[in-house]
Amino acid sequence: MRAVGLSPAFGHARRMTRRIALLLEYDGTLFAGSQLQTNARTVQGVLEAAVEKATEVSSRVAFAGRTDAGVHAEGQVAAFVTESAHDIETMRRALNAWLPEDVAVLAVTDVDAAFDPRRSAVRRRYRYVIDNRQVRPALVRQRAWHVAPALDEGAMAKAAASVLGSRDFAAFASRLEDEGASTVRRLERFEVARDGSIVTYVLEANAFLPHQVRRMVGALVEVGKGKLDAAGYEGLLRGAAASAGPAAPPHGLYLERVFYERDPFGPT
Amino acid sequence: MRAVGLSPAFGHARRMTRRIALLLEYDGTLFAGSQLQTNARTVQGVLEAAVEKATEVSSRVAFAGRTDAGVHAEGQVAAFVTESAHDIETMRRALNAWLPEDVAVLAVTDVDAAFDPRRSAVRRRYRYVIDNRQVRPALVRQRAWHVAPALDEGAMAKAAASVLGSRDFAAFASRLEDEGASTVRRLERFEVARDGSIVTYVLEANAFLPHQVRRMVGALVEVGKGKLDAAGYEGLLRGAAASAGPAAPPHGLYLERVFYERDPFGPT
Repeated sequence: MRAVGLSPAFGHARRMTRRIALLLEYDGTLFAGSQLQTNARTVQGVLEAAVEKATEVSSRVAFAGRTDAGVHAEGQVAAFVTESAHDIETMRRALNAWLPEDVAVLAVTDVDAAFDPRRSAVRRRYRYVIDNRQVRPALVRQRAWHVAPALDEGAMAKAAASVLGSRDFAAFASRLEDEGASTVRRLERFEVARDGSIVTYVLEANAFLPHQVRRMVGALVEVGKGKLDAAGYEGLLRGAAASAGPAAPPHGLYLERVFYERDPFGPT
Repeated sequence: MRAVGLSPAFGHARRMTRRIALLLEYDGTLFAGSQLQTNARTVQGVLEAAVEKATEVSSRVAFAGRTDAGVHAEGQVAAFVTESAHDIETMRRALNAWLPEDVAVLAVTDVDAAFDPRRSAVRRRYRYVIDNRQVRPALVRQRAWHVAPALDEGAMAKAAASVLGSRDFAAFASRLEDEGASTVRRLERFEVARDGSIVTYVLEANAFLPHQVRRMVGALVEVGKGKLDAAGYEGLLRGAAASAGPAAPPHGLYLERVFYERDPFGPT
């Protein structure tokens, strides 16, 4: 026999609040960056629209890292809170169905309420790609920076190794986010590899300052051209904030992976 | 003492007719194919416009191979006749300056009057790229065909090897160009390789029938899914013209290289 006297509200499933994390790939070419802007197409904007379509409720989405207009991602991490009861496979399919073709949700997972994609991250990996050939590229023109003069990858690798470790990278920052905040970062990996005309740089650090990767690559290209040696490159660190020369353009940069104490998406 | 009495016409440099060959790279995404069309953007259309700008005379450009809308090229060969006196380096720079960003001239060379980019070619190499993962790709969406079911590259390689040699490939043609013309081609290479989710097919033959590469890859994917075995794949050759099932989409296809008895662009 059924219990009586329960209020009509109990006729609906009681909805639980959940925190969902997403692993994202996107082509940055047609975005004005990751972060929401008025009157500009952003990754956050299209993602929040897709979340609203998939869950029927609008939610704010937070990202692990900000990416500028033109910068790509293969492993951006985002999170939002929802009362949706979709299982994670349904959520992934629904989001991909609502997202435009230049953004894809690679994985969806439930995370603890304490999970913050930016603050919980312990390490980030970026990749920068240069097409180092005489003629401008047609096929990778939005995926790699074209640098025509021959670059010496051995000299660049040596200079890159000279700036590893915990250092004050203020000279490579475009702007300092909070006055007085530390600009020391622990650079754990900075590698240079060539495959034909394609030169790839991989950088891993606990965190990066604004535009740090692009400015470190921009100055390293001067080393590759023979205009600066490894000692001169390391010496740039002693310069004033934002003094290390121009940034490499955004379209060669990829946010490849964000690391957490425990990978929310499981072994990949 | 200068000779006198020469007609005024000799006051101008006598212009020689030259035949120029171009090595081209292009992103097929925004082209309605390689061949000139009225009211459609084609590679031939933008190339002839660039040649006219660079040489101040309009010229007809011929290609080694026709590529459909969406098909890319890394080594298309084109040729035209001109009276321009530009040295080849100036010609390359001028053409690249006038071409849109999705076409690049990789090399320019003078060739014999007898050089015909299509008829003189002795072998062609195409590459087809599949992104074989569960989620649709955002970054390579215009560079690779997305196939979600896991493909067995070993089974595909075995079936691919079974169709090597001189054979009648009519079953894999979309249309037969000239009734009565031979549909026998000599397939010298058909390889399958996987790198993560990316599966790459390389095909080399003296020549290919219309859509042959895309139909051979389309049917090979059925082998990769386990729906057809190597014997069944080879058996498709015995079917009627254009009977071997649907073509793989154009955006995964690249015209990689065209071979001549003597490489007009020299050793690369």
